[in-house]
Amino acid sequence: MNIGIVGATGAVGEELIRLFIEGIDKKEINNIKLSLFASSRSKGMVINEGNHELLIEEFSLKNTADCDVVFLCVSGDFSLKYAKELAKNSIVIDNSSAYRYDSDVPLIVPPVNGSCYKGEKLIANPNCSSAIALVALKPIHDRYEIEHMIVSTYQAASGAGKNGLIELKESIKSFGNNTLVNKESKYFKYNLAYNVVPQVDNFLDNAYTKEEMKVVWEVKKVLDDPNIKISVTAVRVPVIRSHAESITLKFKNKVNNISDIKEMLKNTEGVLLKDDVSNNIYPMPMTSTHNNDVEVGRIRKNLIYEDYGIDMFISGDQLLRGASYNAYEIFKRLLY
Amino acid sequence: MNIGIVGATGAVGEELIRLFIEGIDKKEINNIKLSLFASSRSKGMVINEGNHELLIEEFSLKNTADCDVVFLCVSGDFSLKYAKELAKNSIVIDNSSAYRYDSDVPLIVPPVNGSCYKGEKLIANPNCSSAIALVALKPIHDRYEIEHMIVSTYQAASGAGKNGLIELKESIKSFGNNTLVNKESKYFKYNLAYNVVPQVDNFLDNAYTKEEMKVVWEVKKVLDDPNIKISVTAVRVPVIRSHAESITLKFKNKVNNISDIKEMLKNTEGVLLKDDVSNNIYPMPMTSTHNNDVEVGRIRKNLIYEDYGIDMFISGDQLLRGASYNAYEIFKRLLY
Repeated sequence: MNIGIVGATGAVGEELIRLFIEGIDKKEINNIKLSLFASSRSKGMVINEGNHELLIEEFSLKNTADCDVVFLCVSGDFSLKYAKELAKNSIVIDNSSAYRYDSDVPLIVPPVNGSCYKGEKLIANPNCSSAIALVALKPIHDRYEIEHMIVSTYQAASGAGKNGLIELKESIKSFGNNTLVNKESKYFKYNLAYNVVPQVDNFLDNAYTKEEMKVVWEVKKVLDDPNIKISVTAVRVPVIRSHAESITLKFKNKVNNISDIKEMLKNTEGVLLKDDVSNNIYPMPMTSTHNNDVEVGRIRKNLIYEDYGIDMFISGDQLLRGASYNAYEIFKRLLY
Repeated sequence: MNIGIVGATGAVGEELIRLFIEGIDKKEINNIKLSLFASSRSKGMVINEGNHELLIEEFSLKNTADCDVVFLCVSGDFSLKYAKELAKNSIVIDNSSAYRYDSDVPLIVPPVNGSCYKGEKLIANPNCSSAIALVALKPIHDRYEIEHMIVSTYQAASGAGKNGLIELKESIKSFGNNTLVNKESKYFKYNLAYNVVPQVDNFLDNAYTKEEMKVVWEVKKVLDDPNIKISVTAVRVPVIRSHAESITLKFKNKVNNISDIKEMLKNTEGVLLKDDVSNNIYPMPMTSTHNNDVEVGRIRKNLIYEDYGIDMFISGDQLLRGASYNAYEIFKRLLY
């Protein structure tokens, strides 16, 4: 199979290349020809990954014409311009939000709703915060039926790409006696060094950011339940890769025992249960970074809803389950 | 008046000294004799603040005997050992949690419930996360009656004292290619560099941390309403001084217009309204650090409770409104 990765030099593209190479080396996938595409600036660059040397080509519809599957790890504007055209020849997995909310485009988190795939040529990969939460939410919703969900996020700098990461590290270096030498930021709304910024993406008319509404829309779509009511506060924190989320859930059905939920999540694909507070074991970016599974923990009865609600904390690698690994799984489980 | 500050070399003690010197220099307070106390290790140290030179004495009951007011900026264990004894001679303002939940000890945030003070000799200063939230919650509760409150915190390293701050900065310096050279932490449960840690203080039997329950207990006590139901997730983030909190509120009374709440908070003492999302204006540690007022913003209709609830984001300096400034205000408004 011919696989094209567009946006091969970006943070998500790089991870996706690594996952494919790893899959090929481990013989999880065979007969794969990997073609990498980026803008003209990166044309001719060579990517070394494991024992593989891969040349970057300039993206064009012509250059990608013989790809069976094309991954778009690019901006929403780029996807809006090319995804439908590409989908005439290839199956397209789009990492942007451009088509996620179209009723005829499936939005897929493989362990959650992979079975909804009906052979569409354009497939949407979810937002990072949604994807990370959904692997844990699915079994909980199936058993207890989520009525309300309140989320506050702790989102890593990697969400703003490689340049955002470099800026964060450089800014922190220049941080003197409790003040920044240069408070400007090119890649975030405000400099993120020793700061938290309660804005990810732009604001919409309802005073929520688009990032916040993406979680609202995507959780309903992927769980295929428009009745769940969701409110989100999305916040950027000075962390490199992994996002974390504080989640409050209110259920229709009674939770008899918190340990039932833990047991269930222990056996849930894509979830790594980290919940042993007596030994200070809980999810953290420090431990979830570079792992495909989402850490879930601090599961406890919510003090408001009592037997009908829980609080929990999750952390997952934004570039993996939150982006490239989910896209790779869509390929491996549904298309390969 | 003779004022004693015990714990003068700690993060909170230092800020309290600064506030007193500032108050004296501005002639807000007169005829103040400031005496500083610490452990035998710091005895003889000289603190320079403005044009003032202050000598640190070793703490003892005898040394503090002629103080009219004693501030305890020390651990709960220290307060448990000395506060009641000190309160026989002096009025004691205790920054620890040792006596906060005793029914005969007033817990005071001056602009919120200063009027409840009836001349008690021992006064408790609230937890940082509680104090910061309470200045904003009070007018909202008076008008709309809070039924439920869900909080996720973004707490700065300063909560773990000066050593915690130094460790955070040193760890970040040693952060190499996305990994820490040394992942150990002496002052936090886990190293905080580019990490978030969902544990502040120890875990209790209900799987909440003591920090989380402090907010639950203190918000009810200060607002004098045991019926408010509260659930909290307390999280440490790599920020220097200011805490932030994502707060969801459900009300008994209908909110006709979000702008009414903004208008009310604009005129609330202790609150700085920062809520203009069209110009990317909202609360952040970067801007709230070193300010006495708590920044409040991102006020919007909650998507679950609609007209009966809001989401908001706040940020306040943990060492000021969250500790020393609140203690200073207790003195200035109720005792001076």
